[in-house]
Amino acid sequence: MDKGAEKSRYQGWRLRTHEIIFEAETPAGKTFDLMLITVILLSVVVVMMESTALMRDNFGEILRILEWGFTILFTIEYFLRLTTVGRPWLYARSFYGLVDLLSIIPTYLSLIVPGSQYLLVIRTLRILRVFRILRLVRYMTEASLLYRAIYASRRKIFVFLYGVMILVIIVGSLMYVVEGEENGFTSIPRSIYWAVVTLTTVGYGDIAPQTIPGQLLAVIVMIMGYGIIAVPTGIVTSELSQMSPQTFNTKTCHNCSAEGHDKDAVYCKFCGEKV
Amino acid sequence: MDKGAEKSRYQGWRLRTHEIIFEAETPAGKTFDLMLITVILLSVVVVMMESTALMRDNFGEILRILEWGFTILFTIEYFLRLTTVGRPWLYARSFYGLVDLLSIIPTYLSLIVPGSQYLLVIRTLRILRVFRILRLVRYMTEASLLYRAIYASRRKIFVFLYGVMILVIIVGSLMYVVEGEENGFTSIPRSIYWAVVTLTTVGYGDIAPQTIPGQLLAVIVMIMGYGIIAVPTGIVTSELSQMSPQTFNTKTCHNCSAEGHDKDAVYCKFCGEKV
Amino acid sequence: MDKGAEKSRYQGWRLRTHEIIFEAETPAGKTFDLMLITVILLSVVVVMMESTALMRDNFGEILRILEWGFTILFTIEYFLRLTTVGRPWLYARSFYGLVDLLSIIPTYLSLIVPGSQYLLVIRTLRILRVFRILRLVRYMTEASLLYRAIYASRRKIFVFLYGVMILVIIVGSLMYVVEGEENGFTSIPRSIYWAVVTLTTVGYGDIAPQTIPGQLLAVIVMIMGYGIIAVPTGIVTSELSQMSPQTFNTKTCHNCSAEGHDKDAVYCKFCGEKV
Amino acid sequence: MDKGAEKSRYQGWRLRTHEIIFEAETPAGKTFDLMLITVILLSVVVVMMESTALMRDNFGEILRILEWGFTILFTIEYFLRLTTVGRPWLYARSFYGLVDLLSIIPTYLSLIVPGSQYLLVIRTLRILRVFRILRLVRYMTEASLLYRAIYASRRKIFVFLYGVMILVIIVGSLMYVVEGEENGFTSIPRSIYWAVVTLTTVGYGDIAPQTIPGQLLAVIVMIMGYGIIAVPTGIVTSELSQMSPQTFNTKTCHNCSAEGHDKDAVYCKFCGEKV
Repeated sequence: MDKGAEKSRYQGWRLRTHEIIFEAETPAGKTFDLMLITVILLSVVVVMMESTALMRDNFGEILRILEWGFTILFTIEYFLRLTTVGRPWLYARSFYGLVDLLSIIPTYLSLIVPGSQYLLVIRTLRILRVFRILRLVRYMTEASLLYRAIYASRRKIFVFLYGVMILVIIVGSLMYVVEGEENGFTSIPRSIYWAVVTLTTVGYGDIAPQTIPGQLLAVIVMIMGYGIIAVPTGIVTSELSQMSPQTFNTKTCHNCSAEGHDKDAVYCKFCGEKV
Repeated sequence: MDKGAEKSRYQGWRLRTHEIIFEAETPAGKTFDLMLITVILLSVVVVMMESTALMRDNFGEILRILEWGFTILFTIEYFLRLTTVGRPWLYARSFYGLVDLLSIIPTYLSLIVPGSQYLLVIRTLRILRVFRILRLVRYMTEASLLYRAIYASRRKIFVFLYGVMILVIIVGSLMYVVEGEENGFTSIPRSIYWAVVTLTTVGYGDIAPQTIPGQLLAVIVMIMGYGIIAVPTGIVTSELSQMSPQTFNTKTCHNCSAEGHDKDAVYCKFCGEKV
Repeated sequence: MDKGAEKSRYQGWRLRTHEIIFEAETPAGKTFDLMLITVILLSVVVVMMESTALMRDNFGEILRILEWGFTILFTIEYFLRLTTVGRPWLYARSFYGLVDLLSIIPTYLSLIVPGSQYLLVIRTLRILRVFRILRLVRYMTEASLLYRAIYASRRKIFVFLYGVMILVIIVGSLMYVVEGEENGFTSIPRSIYWAVVTLTTVGYGDIAPQTIPGQLLAVIVMIMGYGIIAVPTGIVTSELSQMSPQTFNTKTCHNCSAEGHDKDAVYCKFCGEKV
Repeated sequence: MDKGAEKSRYQGWRLRTHEIIFEAETPAGKTFDLMLITVILLSVVVVMMESTALMRDNFGEILRILEWGFTILFTIEYFLRLTTVGRPWLYARSFYGLVDLLSIIPTYLSLIVPGSQYLLVIRTLRILRVFRILRLVRYMTEASLLYRAIYASRRKIFVFLYGVMILVIIVGSLMYVVEGEENGFTSIPRSIYWAVVTLTTVGYGDIAPQTIPGQLLAVIVMIMGYGIIAVPTGIVTSELSQMSPQTFNTKTCHNCSAEGHDKDAVYCKFCGEKV
């Protein structure tokens, strides 16, 4: 009985910690989420500051201490997650589990292999957890709507990207022949890089056509890119347009059970009955 | 009785000035608005001219005199607004009140602290008052429609920008590791700046990937940016599409004279009468 | 009677020439249109070739002769238009009339003022007449649909551009203060030029922010530009979406006279009657 | 009879090979398609690697051998296609037939004319055959939907591109006069190249306006380009929006089991039965 009580006490502790860490509905869970998000953002800021020469030179010591502080905090969090979760192994192998682990390893590694704290930028991946804030500010409807629109159009987007990929390979190869290695198009992969830079209208200008035929081809590619951008936009827009009314208005007519009424409709627009 | 008459005379003067300054419906109000917009535009042109070396060298004296002229005009306007408005304190603390005040202070400050007329560029903020011209040319319907479409999609746009922000931090960190400080990616914040320049398809070219893996990553980011631009467009478009029919469809109900019916509506959706 | 016959002969000649030149329905009119378009395109090509140093040096003599040939042809055409049109003065003052005149003057001027054939580039404006080809290839429906969609959304586009203009002035002024003259932002107009280059995602890279606060501001402007592009797209798209069904499908139901049926509809979707 | 048996045996062999090579439904056809796509992708990778100096210097010999291997494989494939297809001449003259032939010729030519294996980049055109993978992964519905949307809007896109072409010629000519040859706008064609680079928001920055009037004109062109991009997007989006419901709405009629009804349909539009 003593043992059972201990076990239930232990389970109670585990259950409560689990609720705090993994759930967002309870006040304690919300507080934990907010604190976690704050700590993650701070740790990302520290990683960023360490990467700038000016900061590293002046506040190197403080940044190192902060880094160790965050690493210890994240280590505790990682072990709490492991011990309180139902299936630790499943969590450990999940995307977030791996990110959580990878974000603490580099600091410890730097004790053995000097310079490996360079890998600390992996910690910025933890920023993905910050998406939880959408749940806190109740923006999940919008997030899921966008997600579903993109998800519903994933196949069309895949086909589109597939076409762009093939187009870019052909244009890149052509440009390699037209401009040649003396004008900066030193290889086909580099020409393909140029083709992507041009087609997406980014246009760095680090490689630009120098010859008349090259500029002519570039003009065609640019105008294609200008027109092609219409395709993903059209896909996502038509998906979002179809989704919106269904999601936000589920008022149905009692008489003819028609849906799709406007938000300000009082009577069914098909049979004249009150909705 | 003498005092009351003076007071009412005073109030009449205040009321009339208030009408002229704050309202746009009366002819006097329209004239004032037009004059104010003209003066603001001229003052902004003067600030611009003062900033160019050529103009400053040749017409410095004239520009200085004009600057003082506009400052005195704006000072009079500011005090007229303060004295004729119902709650002066509320106006003084409002956005426009602060802009109005800040746009006159620098010139006076330049008497005490030399060089502080540099702050005069704040005056360009007064150009926001020029939005009143939309009321004059009766474009308010269009402006409010656009405003409502953007307002209605603000949550989706927020979620979108949130996702972009996180994406840009991760891509920037990755690029910092891939390209390294010797290729211009001197810090993570600078790499994030590059990621934004690339994802938004601006592409200055002041920082561009030099290594093969860096260019590969850049290609992925560019194509993502090319596709991602579809999301805000889809949001605003689907919002505008849903809004437009209500605004532009002029079918009115015979019974209740309501507008805004769908094009395929059979019965008035407000009173149930056939349209 | 002799005179009357001459007059009617004269009128017959004028009428026939008018038909050929101004109308596109008759076979003769079509042939004239095709020939005119060909000659205009050739003359534009000659102007382009004259502007390139290589062509000018090698074929200068031939290009000069061709230029005189086109000038004489266009002069004849201009006088034919003047004499055969109902109201010559109205034509002479119209946009096309002015372009037609301006495109022949520079060559004659070059006899008096050497070097004034430089103005010949005005001739490229004649290329606008090439829009007539849309009538020849029967693409007028599409052209007028696009024109109407843009025309219907002109007010919203005006409001949008107005907002962009004000935004660009404010951002340019801010950037002038933040970056200062030593980083290439030598004046407010130049900073506004940078703001437009950045907001429209063109991004030449001739001016780019150098300081940290400047890059931060640039990042905000870029993301704004990325989102703002959604607005004109949304405007034109929602206008085109509303227009298309009305334009291309005018089938109405005999029973309930409802419109808006799909192209493949056999029965009215509101009352079940055959359409 | 011996001859007939041989012929039928020959025909059986031809028929079977034809099925494997040209059809995608049978397991053998699928396997062949997959293998062909793999080989094409590998051959393209080899062509790419040969174009990079580093690879050519280190693995030149291996790449040459692989090149000959792919050429022999493609030669066999080409002759198999020729012998098994119904009308060999029709295939040989078709687009794919020409690409198949052109992709094997350069390697053989390099035996006679040294250096002509440079033409091998034509082989990258074979990558177009990779589109067959869409059939393998059953993405044909999406591909054909996109294709139909673009096909349906081809006339509007043509009119749009026509307008852009004329605009670009006029803007280029104007810019040539405004900026002049000393600022990099050395000829009208080059100015037109700049106009396209700017209007499509690519913005390399290899040519950029230097004078104030030139920058003013550039600002106008940029804002036009920013707005004009809305037009193709609007065209494709409205086309896709109209198409989508027919494809994705799965309401079927009880009477005639037709699909593709509108969401607000009351009666089946094909047979008049209530849906």
